[in-house]
Amino acid sequence: MQSFELDKSDLLKIKRALEEDDAALKELISEYHPSEIAILFESLSQESRERIISILPAELASEVISEMDSEFHPEKLLENLHPERRSEIVEELDYDDATDIISQLPEEQQREILQELDEEDASNIRSLLKYEEDTAGGLMNTQVIKINEYLIKKDAIEEIIHQSEEMEEFYTINVINDQNILLGIVSLKDIIKARNNVRIKELIKSDFVYVKADTDQEEVAKLISQYNLTSIPVVDDEMHLLGRITFDDVIDVMEEENTEDILKISGVSEDEELAGNWKEAVKSRLPWLVLNLGTAFLAASIIRYFDSTIASLGVLAGYMVIIAGMGGNAATQALAVTVRRISLNDLSDNQAYRTVLKEFTVGLINGATIGFIVFLFALFYDQNPMLGIVIFIAMTGNLIIAGIAGSAIPLVLKRVGIDPAIASSIIITTFTDVFGFLLLLGLASKLIL
Amino acid sequence: MQSFELDKSDLLKIKRALEEDDAALKELISEYHPSEIAILFESLSQESRERIISILPAELASEVISEMDSEFHPEKLLENLHPERRSEIVEELDYDDATDIISQLPEEQQREILQELDEEDASNIRSLLKYEEDTAGGLMNTQVIKINEYLIKKDAIEEIIHQSEEMEEFYTINVINDQNILLGIVSLKDIIKARNNVRIKELIKSDFVYVKADTDQEEVAKLISQYNLTSIPVVDDEMHLLGRITFDDVIDVMEEENTEDILKISGVSEDEELAGNWKEAVKSRLPWLVLNLGTAFLAASIIRYFDSTIASLGVLAGYMVIIAGMGGNAATQALAVTVRRISLNDLSDNQAYRTVLKEFTVGLINGATIGFIVFLFALFYDQNPMLGIVIFIAMTGNLIIAGIAGSAIPLVLKRVGIDPAIASSIIITTFTDVFGFLLLLGLASKLIL
Repeated sequence: MQSFELDKSDLLKIKRALEEDDAALKELISEYHPSEIAILFESLSQESRERIISILPAELASEVISEMDSEFHPEKLLENLHPERRSEIVEELDYDDATDIISQLPEEQQREILQELDEEDASNIRSLLKYEEDTAGGLMNTQVIKINEYLIKKDAIEEIIHQSEEMEEFYTINVINDQNILLGIVSLKDIIKARNNVRIKELIKSDFVYVKADTDQEEVAKLISQYNLTSIPVVDDEMHLLGRITFDDVIDVMEEENTEDILKISGVSEDEELAGNWKEAVKSRLPWLVLNLGTAFLAASIIRYFDSTIASLGVLAGYMVIIAGMGGNAATQALAVTVRRISLNDLSDNQAYRTVLKEFTVGLINGATIGFIVFLFALFYDQNPMLGIVIFIAMTGNLIIAGIAGSAIPLVLKRVGIDPAIASSIIITTFTDVFGFLLLLGLASKLIL
Repeated sequence: MQSFELDKSDLLKIKRALEEDDAALKELISEYHPSEIAILFESLSQESRERIISILPAELASEVISEMDSEFHPEKLLENLHPERRSEIVEELDYDDATDIISQLPEEQQREILQELDEEDASNIRSLLKYEEDTAGGLMNTQVIKINEYLIKKDAIEEIIHQSEEMEEFYTINVINDQNILLGIVSLKDIIKARNNVRIKELIKSDFVYVKADTDQEEVAKLISQYNLTSIPVVDDEMHLLGRITFDDVIDVMEEENTEDILKISGVSEDEELAGNWKEAVKSRLPWLVLNLGTAFLAASIIRYFDSTIASLGVLAGYMVIIAGMGGNAATQALAVTVRRISLNDLSDNQAYRTVLKEFTVGLINGATIGFIVFLFALFYDQNPMLGIVIFIAMTGNLIIAGIAGSAIPLVLKRVGIDPAIASSIIITTFTDVFGFLLLLGLASKLIL
């Protein structure tokens, strides 16, 4: 089986069916898995999406909406639906998905939708809307399996089957006391294996991992990945069970955080949507370019300062670009390795120190190697050995600085609590531009002219 | 609960205990979770690691080894162990983990270790060693729960409990026929809910996701993430059940693939280990720098060609650096957004076309904006309106080219089957260097001088 990929024939079939009546369209669409329909939606107009959502069975419609990537604005599909139909769909959604989607709408509309829902659903979603989007509370689902510690085996199994009726999947069975305080977890397997008169209390695994509602989502992802958990309970300060976060939510968080890292390291605002339009892209990237323009002027002012040096030795202009360029590349390499390493694991002070030392060594060796090649060029092509020596020193020096800056800047940022990925290649590159120009032109003006 | 972070006091305690006798050391270490010990190992010497592994209970030792990041070479801990002790530990490992670790050793040692194992374990590991590391076969565990379609409820539950005895966790129950052909899956919940005389055959969910042993691991990760699966069965061409891959293996694959993307896009070989030493880093990065040196010479040769232009208008050297630099940054931005988007989802031809069009528009607007700022500078600071106009045109042109190159190059690479992340910022940047210099110096030589 292959993961679903948008096939022209699928899309063509659907586009044709969109011109036919609702019954034919509904029949065709129902052949696909909800996550496949969600992907097909990405290539359809808003109007077509709305029509399909309005004719599908409420359960399937809600699954499609919950599978849609937030970049394609599932919330917009709710806006124009008939209120009754809309409640039907929202009530089929898991509370966490419903909350995520509704939270994207203006407050006015949020209130309207919540009023249409039955009281239990509305109050559950209202309480979830209070949590920050990127915390455990914002990620959790309030539908959990929970059984009282004093239940005996038979009653526990009955209770689990009853509670799981409305849930697609469950992974962990939470054990609580009469005050809804979470005591531990137990596996269905252990309950089934136990003798018939056992009380759940005796089966509890009390050494388990849980998170508070305000825990950062990145922290939750680390826990799930580190301890290989399918699901993790969320509690308040008094250990009352509030909900659960499952591994599939965390996979989405990881994708999101990785996207942010790649974008930030490349000087793009983390909230630019990958499939966004040009207006969003300009808004997200122009400020970084303007910021960089300031630093580019700094680099240019160094060149201006050595105006006469360049005028008397014209070939310097070309070498200057080579040295600055290689410095920028070496810095980007060191930066990528260091930022990625920090984002997977925190480094101790000693590890941080050794990282910078390593990058210094790498810069020295790569700088000397590249510097030697360029030295040979200056020697044989430009017939200027002194120029060659100056270039060798400048190249080596610049690549050492590149290594140190590329590793130390993100490490220091992390220690003072700033996201290290913000030390984008854009900023680091200007750093090596300035030093590259200074080294080459400064040395040339002293040693050659 | 917080995810485990290396705390100086933990490390200090352990370093102190390393100077004491085995009993005290063993007691201290046993307080930690295996995945925590694996993280602590990263800060200990090879010698200390070996000592700890040799004194821990075999089960705990094997869990620590399986939790270690491959960058820290868990296989090296097996090399110096007493053969008997080594078999004990390897036999406690899941087959997939044992295979991953053993496959890192030289063939001689692999054979030695396999000979020490009992026949069943050895033959299981031998058969797993045949699969490529980055395929479903290389990722799968052969320990699965499988029950015959004709079992009745009571016998099925007994069989499941019996088979799961040796497994830490299971998620899916596979249903097979007498020929070990996979017919479908069934959930424990459905079995428990069913009437007493039901046959498993009647409960089978036959519409399920599975993969072939040679499926690429990236494909497996996409399926698990798209269909929110805890585990996915692996079969051969005749649908014989070979094993299963679980979500936690896939989380590791995703981290790995994301690391590769970030490294490649920054011009670092994908197989550089983040925590590797300077020798590995030089080996992984120097070839890219040398490759880039070639393209940097190309950029420099354009500057040489316009030697006399720069000599007659000295300020050009500074502006040249600004225009090339801004082009490089804009290209890196477009590249990061495009590469990340492709790696999450394939784009249809139409989506690809619209992506390039979007980047063209972004380049035009950002280029004209930045160009206008620099134009003002040339106008008021250098008092040279014609130079300002040339700069404006060159900046706008270069940022348009940056947008098109940054998006089109990875899209084309993907279509011809090359990893798009290889279009690293290093290569794209030289591209914009060359065009930036050509535009500015070419226009200046025609229009100003």
